[in-house]
Amino acid sequence: MTNYVTIDEWNIIEEGLHLDNNRIYESIMSIGNGKMGIRGNFEEDFTGDSLKGTYIAGVYYPDKTRVGWWKNGYPEYFAKVINAADFIGIKVELNGENLDLAKSKVCEFKRTLNMKNGYLLRSFVVEDTSNNKFKIEVKRFLSMARSEIGAISYSITPIDNDATISFTPYLNGDISNEDSNYDEKFWNVINKNVDSTLGHLTLKTKKLDFEVTTAMKYNLFIDGSEIEFSPALQIEEKFVANKLSTPVKAGSTITIFKYVAVTSSRYYEKENLTLKAYELVKEASKIGFEELLQEHSNKWAQIWNEGDIVIDGDPSAEQAIRFNIFQLNQTYTGEDSRLNIGPKGFTGEKYGGSTYWDTEAYCIPFYLSTREAAIAKNLLIYRYNQLDKAKENAAKLGLKGALYPMVTMNGEECHNEWEITFEEIHRNAAIPYAIFNYVNYTGDEAYLAEYGLDVLVETSRFWASRATYNKFKDKYMILGVTGPNEYENNVNNNWYTNTMATWNLKYTIKVIELLKDKYSAEYKNLENKLNLKAEEIEQWKDVINKMYFPYSEELGIFLQQDGYLDKEQILVKDLSPENLPLNQKWSWDRILRSCFIKQADVLQGLYLLDDKFSVEVKKRNFDFYEQRTVHESSLSPCIHSIIAAEVGYEDKAYDLYLRTARLDLDNYNNDTVDGLHITSMAGTWMSIVHGFGGLRIKDNTLSLNPFIPKAWTKYSFKVLFRNHLIKVSVSASNITLEQQNGETFSLLVKNKRYTIHENETITINK
Amino acid sequence: MTNYVTIDEWNIIEEGLHLDNNRIYESIMSIGNGKMGIRGNFEEDFTGDSLKGTYIAGVYYPDKTRVGWWKNGYPEYFAKVINAADFIGIKVELNGENLDLAKSKVCEFKRTLNMKNGYLLRSFVVEDTSNNKFKIEVKRFLSMARSEIGAISYSITPIDNDATISFTPYLNGDISNEDSNYDEKFWNVINKNVDSTLGHLTLKTKKLDFEVTTAMKYNLFIDGSEIEFSPALQIEEKFVANKLSTPVKAGSTITIFKYVAVTSSRYYEKENLTLKAYELVKEASKIGFEELLQEHSNKWAQIWNEGDIVIDGDPSAEQAIRFNIFQLNQTYTGEDSRLNIGPKGFTGEKYGGSTYWDTEAYCIPFYLSTREAAIAKNLLIYRYNQLDKAKENAAKLGLKGALYPMVTMNGEECHNEWEITFEEIHRNAAIPYAIFNYVNYTGDEAYLAEYGLDVLVETSRFWASRATYNKFKDKYMILGVTGPNEYENNVNNNWYTNTMATWNLKYTIKVIELLKDKYSAEYKNLENKLNLKAEEIEQWKDVINKMYFPYSEELGIFLQQDGYLDKEQILVKDLSPENLPLNQKWSWDRILRSCFIKQADVLQGLYLLDDKFSVEVKKRNFDFYEQRTVHESSLSPCIHSIIAAEVGYEDKAYDLYLRTARLDLDNYNNDTVDGLHITSMAGTWMSIVHGFGGLRIKDNTLSLNPFIPKAWTKYSFKVLFRNHLIKVSVSASNITLEQQNGETFSLLVKNKRYTIHENETITINK
Repeated sequence: MTNYVTIDEWNIIEEGLHLDNNRIYESIMSIGNGKMGIRGNFEEDFTGDSLKGTYIAGVYYPDKTRVGWWKNGYPEYFAKVINAADFIGIKVELNGENLDLAKSKVCEFKRTLNMKNGYLLRSFVVEDTSNNKFKIEVKRFLSMARSEIGAISYSITPIDNDATISFTPYLNGDISNEDSNYDEKFWNVINKNVDSTLGHLTLKTKKLDFEVTTAMKYNLFIDGSEIEFSPALQIEEKFVANKLSTPVKAGSTITIFKYVAVTSSRYYEKENLTLKAYELVKEASKIGFEELLQEHSNKWAQIWNEGDIVIDGDPSAEQAIRFNIFQLNQTYTGEDSRLNIGPKGFTGEKYGGSTYWDTEAYCIPFYLSTREAAIAKNLLIYRYNQLDKAKENAAKLGLKGALYPMVTMNGEECHNEWEITFEEIHRNAAIPYAIFNYVNYTGDEAYLAEYGLDVLVETSRFWASRATYNKFKDKYMILGVTGPNEYENNVNNNWYTNTMATWNLKYTIKVIELLKDKYSAEYKNLENKLNLKAEEIEQWKDVINKMYFPYSEELGIFLQQDGYLDKEQILVKDLSPENLPLNQKWSWDRILRSCFIKQADVLQGLYLLDDKFSVEVKKRNFDFYEQRTVHESSLSPCIHSIIAAEVGYEDKAYDLYLRTARLDLDNYNNDTVDGLHITSMAGTWMSIVHGFGGLRIKDNTLSLNPFIPKAWTKYSFKVLFRNHLIKVSVSASNITLEQQNGETFSLLVKNKRYTIHENETITINK
Repeated sequence: MTNYVTIDEWNIIEEGLHLDNNRIYESIMSIGNGKMGIRGNFEEDFTGDSLKGTYIAGVYYPDKTRVGWWKNGYPEYFAKVINAADFIGIKVELNGENLDLAKSKVCEFKRTLNMKNGYLLRSFVVEDTSNNKFKIEVKRFLSMARSEIGAISYSITPIDNDATISFTPYLNGDISNEDSNYDEKFWNVINKNVDSTLGHLTLKTKKLDFEVTTAMKYNLFIDGSEIEFSPALQIEEKFVANKLSTPVKAGSTITIFKYVAVTSSRYYEKENLTLKAYELVKEASKIGFEELLQEHSNKWAQIWNEGDIVIDGDPSAEQAIRFNIFQLNQTYTGEDSRLNIGPKGFTGEKYGGSTYWDTEAYCIPFYLSTREAAIAKNLLIYRYNQLDKAKENAAKLGLKGALYPMVTMNGEECHNEWEITFEEIHRNAAIPYAIFNYVNYTGDEAYLAEYGLDVLVETSRFWASRATYNKFKDKYMILGVTGPNEYENNVNNNWYTNTMATWNLKYTIKVIELLKDKYSAEYKNLENKLNLKAEEIEQWKDVINKMYFPYSEELGIFLQQDGYLDKEQILVKDLSPENLPLNQKWSWDRILRSCFIKQADVLQGLYLLDDKFSVEVKKRNFDFYEQRTVHESSLSPCIHSIIAAEVGYEDKAYDLYLRTARLDLDNYNNDTVDGLHITSMAGTWMSIVHGFGGLRIKDNTLSLNPFIPKAWTKYSFKVLFRNHLIKVSVSASNITLEQQNGETFSLLVKNKRYTIHENETITINK
């Protein structure tokens, strides 16, 4: 494995310029604030290999589907988050020569992502062709305090000789997506302007009519004193810029501050977009770069205070887990229930920035434990608001109730592989599970009456109609599905799917009972609105009672699907290494025919329905399936790690944790160029907190069961649980709990109950 | 159902011009001679809806694959037969006005495909804008006697007034495929010329470097006397033409004869293409149109003499079966073992003109019984020559032996749907089956030593490695396949596949024994060359002995696949009509989950391995599966029809026969615009000869078991069997056999043996 970044507990550092791997660093150095994000591109011109990427949350494009062989029911489009106007651009001329790090002589190059304060810093020394040296330092951030604002400070110091330096801050609307299916451009520029200190571009998408205004304002300082300038204005078809040119003495530093405001029609009336963007950018410029950075850093301090994980004795692990927490918080901030978490966040174009079941299965636990409840709740409401589309989707397949899409932007299905789009239906239980998870964690039962039951009832209706009654066996079966393990397609009775479908039906009935009891007025309304009849619930009970679950008596394990044991049984350890990764080395049918598993499937069920299965059952299934799992999804090792931890395989748990901990920082799967694995980052967090820390919620009580991996001397994590902020520290000898905020309450540690007061610290010897 | 064509026993007639359905008529009126084909396009300019189509056998293009989600192992390209230079073109001006049937006033329009003599005739009366009337008659054919030659006669008679008429015969190389994946053009023009009576274009494909020269020559006659002319030459980038203009008296007829020669680098050295084309076209012109047509008609007379089917009392059925026989003979003439039969022949672009298992399963029986043995043999040698590519294909999937491609032009797999490309492997037994069929029919056992065994051994090796040994059940299973019924994908133990694989292994062993015995010297060489060891054959026997076949004891039927009975069992008759056809009305997953069958699957096996199953077994399986089969493949009803005939369901057999008999003539599936269903035409022939006629070969003896559908008064078919030409006539009261050619031999009728001499007629009362 190559070491891409320098190990540092709070910073991600590229030392020296790596032109060949620039796209990897661009992905890693992405910054975002939940409303927008930028890859770690350079501000000045760069002719080397680069994926320019600027993305605005919620602004997407329905790109025409590309497919080899059309199947009935495929969607007409694939929605993708789109590359928006480039607003970081500042062309630089040093003594009349255009700066381009792909061509210039560069030394002392360092690109640093500062995670503590949330900014990207770049510093280097460059020579012009007459060997004049310049020291350059560039810092930028997208404000967590003001979600429309970004700011850049670009400083140049001529080292040996006086120089003429020019800056051309610009906005560029001539951008496209690399992954456009038919090389279409997605934007039209509908208005633009530039004057001596201000400029803007307003772009409109060619379909759906999203509009986005990007406005810029700039000031120039030499050695801290603002200077006047009279720029040359440039307006082109999709481009506005100002060129500022000035002499600078050797040893003096010239700095341009470029402030940017991005307003979109998701948040403002179209006719106000430009005005608002100007208003915001002027205000930002008035506040100034340093003060904006300070309020931004304060937001990060709060995030770290509630969600940091500290690992003593392993700075590489420390760096990795902070990177994951940092990126998750950059991607989703939870104020807007129309937004969700794309698998790559704002760090690349792959997977189109759409919503997958990753959100429910991996991300919600992270946000539940590290941020206030409202944030996870908004992720639930996102799906609640898309219930009607999910009902249309089920109807399209000839089924009742609601089927949530595999991939979506606005609730409509976007994916077009039949074995996934139509068959990977287990996703439809992940959404009810997230409701359960949220209510179980927060205790917010009112959610069920306000939003939850609608989703539970419609997903239950789907399952009841999707299950096939088999009169020969007097059982219900779920035929023709793809489970979480996408290395099997179109199988019958995937255990995970049957189990989660049954769980979904049971939970819905349980919630109905609860609402009848505690929210009877609301329930009456719901019963009416949803047309819920006793016969329907009876039918659900019939499905629950007669559901078929494939099981091997001989091996004492749940069978991944009906035909799993018919396959040739080989273990991963017996595969010679040239076969791996299977998804690159084997033809697809060979993968499908094999017993090898891409990602947790039966084990995913054992994890989610944790309290329904004994440690003994988990151990037997883990022993069987882990040996057959190739973990070729970044979402897989964390689940195996958590089960391994629970059944006492501590070393194995740690080994599995390592497989994703530094996935992007070390470019482990050789795909960091495409962007970061944002949603699987939540899985790494889960490995530590649910796995090593053993966090569960049992009967409204927080329960912990920590161990410490041998490689670490001590680690600690924070948990926000129902207005209690707890810091849990674990060493080889003891476990320390500290309630940093909240009233007295009791919790379980290794199944023993402890009561803890605010600011109290309890140490438990292991 | 619309009546597209006038019923006539020897002609297909469009009466009146149908601009809206022009593409349908263009498909139906296609002509070809096995080496090239043209859709029924007009010679003169036409601005109405039209698919211009001129196709040259064996000249194809590797069009870049289009796919939504790439799977490992997919081919990089999809080979397609390509639209070649348009050589029929003759622009016509009547008193200076360009003739275009989409714009002109036309009456008495008639387009006739004469099947007896193999030409296309068009006649109509057209008016110019000054109401001058012209009678026009156009006749063309592609010579069955000279495979590079085409000829057109284009006659115009001014009816009322003298007129100026001009012809511009041309060659146009600026053509493209409508189904090009990325709107690419596939040809470059590499040289061209035109002088006063001759012209040519040489085109080269942008990939693979196929070259094709099209040369033209023309003469002009008025009332039968050749006239001199001095044409205006036109040469454009991809176009050559001559414009000939002359006054014509009222009542006189001017005729241009345009002769065309097409030479391709498949048959000639590239440097000789032009010379050869000129030589051929000059010779054709010297012979003249009428004599060329006569020798062409003589070839057709011979084909009809050996393969005609006569149906008394049902001219619509008569027309249909002759149309099928006609099109099959236009598509494949069997001299070149590098050619095969595309599902649409030369009549359209769909399915790319490539080879499918249709050839072995449907077409070979037709050619075996209607043409000399060498023709079917060349279809076998086509696959023999592609054995190395099939071995590469198996290796690519991690398997031994040879896997023939699903779709191919040159032996390489072209298809890119994983469930078909990788999983519809039953095709690999169809090729050995065709060898069996050929040897069984012709008695040519020497074929096995010369070509057959290599294919049998390598396909057997494939099956032995593809079968998975299941130690729990001590059985071999074939997992993850798509059977002939493509409405189920990725199923385990498709009965047809398991049965044919086992048959393949058994037949290989049988052939090995036969060769050891009768061709011991050749066998020794083969044993060496193929590295055949006793242990390998033992392993095949193990697979044969322990193969698993899904069976329902309860129902007494073979199960289409392991999970078939787990599906909800509904009958086609219980589906309300708005659900049909399923492939247009249901989403793909709904089709897959349903019990509905696209095409014969278990029944396909019962048909192919006819003598292995009792009538009782066939009846039980027919009763079960026919009720669940929607016949949404044109290849399906014929197989069901044959089984129905065999088990005594005569009315049902006839009903099923009707479902494809006039498929294209009546545009039954609303897809005749795409071209004709050439390979399924062989299935209709089979319905009559194998179904109604009950033709089988039993122990080297021709066996017949005829019945006559109630709707017919009498029918007869011809069979060529081992140098015997037999005419079989069937009426309600008797069966008449006539040996029209061949020595005395004996055959079975209704299991009773009869001996018949040359020119003898035997009448058997029923």
